[in-house]
Amino acid sequence: MKVIPGPASRKLGLRLAELLGAEAVPITCKHFPDGESYVRLDGSVEGETVVIVQSTYPPQDKHLLELCLMADTAKDLGAERVVAVVPYLAYARQDKRFLSGEAVSIRTVGKLLRAAGVDKLITIDIHSDEALKALGIEAVSLSAVPLLARYLAEEKGLGGAFALAPDRGALERAEQASKILGGGFGWLHKERSRITGEVRVEEKALDISGRTVIIFDDIISTGGTIVAATEVLKKQGAARVYAACTHPLLVNDALKRILASGCDGVVGTDSVPSSVSVVPVAGLLARELRDEL
Amino acid sequence: MKVIPGPASRKLGLRLAELLGAEAVPITCKHFPDGESYVRLDGSVEGETVVIVQSTYPPQDKHLLELCLMADTAKDLGAERVVAVVPYLAYARQDKRFLSGEAVSIRTVGKLLRAAGVDKLITIDIHSDEALKALGIEAVSLSAVPLLARYLAEEKGLGGAFALAPDRGALERAEQASKILGGGFGWLHKERSRITGEVRVEEKALDISGRTVIIFDDIISTGGTIVAATEVLKKQGAARVYAACTHPLLVNDALKRILASGCDGVVGTDSVPSSVSVVPVAGLLARELRDEL
Repeated sequence: MKVIPGPASRKLGLRLAELLGAEAVPITCKHFPDGESYVRLDGSVEGETVVIVQSTYPPQDKHLLELCLMADTAKDLGAERVVAVVPYLAYARQDKRFLSGEAVSIRTVGKLLRAAGVDKLITIDIHSDEALKALGIEAVSLSAVPLLARYLAEEKGLGGAFALAPDRGALERAEQASKILGGGFGWLHKERSRITGEVRVEEKALDISGRTVIIFDDIISTGGTIVAATEVLKKQGAARVYAACTHPLLVNDALKRILASGCDGVVGTDSVPSSVSVVPVAGLLARELRDEL
Repeated sequence: MKVIPGPASRKLGLRLAELLGAEAVPITCKHFPDGESYVRLDGSVEGETVVIVQSTYPPQDKHLLELCLMADTAKDLGAERVVAVVPYLAYARQDKRFLSGEAVSIRTVGKLLRAAGVDKLITIDIHSDEALKALGIEAVSLSAVPLLARYLAEEKGLGGAFALAPDRGALERAEQASKILGGGFGWLHKERSRITGEVRVEEKALDISGRTVIIFDDIISTGGTIVAATEVLKKQGAARVYAACTHPLLVNDALKRILASGCDGVVGTDSVPSSVSVVPVAGLLARELRDEL
């Protein structure tokens, strides 16, 4: 097995190679002045299982295309099998046709990856089971929630906190976290307008007065959900509110907005680079990849 | 036949539909705050030959992915055949493995388009025949050189000008232009470093003293080739130098640099939007598409 650390996940790819005791294939990636990507593999991959590590945070399309170029080139140079490790998989939120005529974008992404030679995809906390199925290729989604919960309990001293899902869909994550935090779990009702994108969180009686609450979500993008949930939780008497997510996209001034809303802190994994990407995922990925060795 | 005017070529797509007397399918395209693209077809395409018009100028990867989303969605909604009209096709310059281990990017792009459901591709002045073949799908490249030459002769009064290819590869274009301009043709020796990207144009005796010369190229990106060629031509006594290209990418301050080098004017087609995109290609595309009606 050889590991190709893609340009979007260079550090993570090198760490993964180290943990697996596998060779990291040197790679040259650059962009021409007009923005076209260029990829060159500077080591042999012939006959190998090749693990390409490339997260697809913004600019998503550039990172996706680089992944396709790397996979197709690896296959063309004789790689036997290509496993794409995509810690954050873009387009997974468009996992069904919500309105008639809509693209089911994650299905298209799956077709492109397969056409580029990806035999298997490993990701972390994909938005939904539907998205995983819609990919149409062998795909696994690992959970980083235990890593996040352990970090919050051990490094932040937040053991005993209440684990909250901002909507029903995230409930499983909150339940999983509560097994480590030990302070119970619950959920809020969140609705997002398919037209305007606006988020509304309903108030709901929760036994959180005077307590510390940690909101667990898969992705924090603009932070709208966390801001709305924090406001509801504070109104209901929560003493402290934290947000934990696997993929801290934190678009524009999202972090500033979240902290301004009364949230006491945000924690994420390094699936996506950000100022809160403090929980490393290389170990989680390495355990899954041992089967491929 | 129905036409989908993609977000990168909305105006051209609508004009093409008009010329063909075909229905333009209303389409919603937007970007989420994190940069993900969203596509929805707001009209029926069932059982139809669907012509998707989408140029892939910068940001190339975003425009490519939008094209894939539109094609895949059209097929999913029952389109019988998808013809992609991509006036400017990105990645065509990486049409072979120049250095070992390199991606043959245009081949990967072809695989992605095919996987997304594209049955045929129509483009204009693709960089090379190799690129057209490497796509691996039914593909046609039309020439906009007669349109450019006619515009220069009729609108700019440049009939009788010498048509110049900046390198041997572009010679056929210069020859084609000279049939309309009537002032002879020739070429320069251009070399581009595969490592630094730097362009060198050799001096060469050409019978151009006191004459008007028009440089014909397929793409003007940073303008390095045009600047170097203009300097050589001026040194050899050319009275006036113009540049004509099919795809005026004109990255950053390319146009300013070209004019500063002594070039008297730049003309391009509307395959790519720019301040010099004065020659319309809709008619050329419509003629080719009549066979599909």
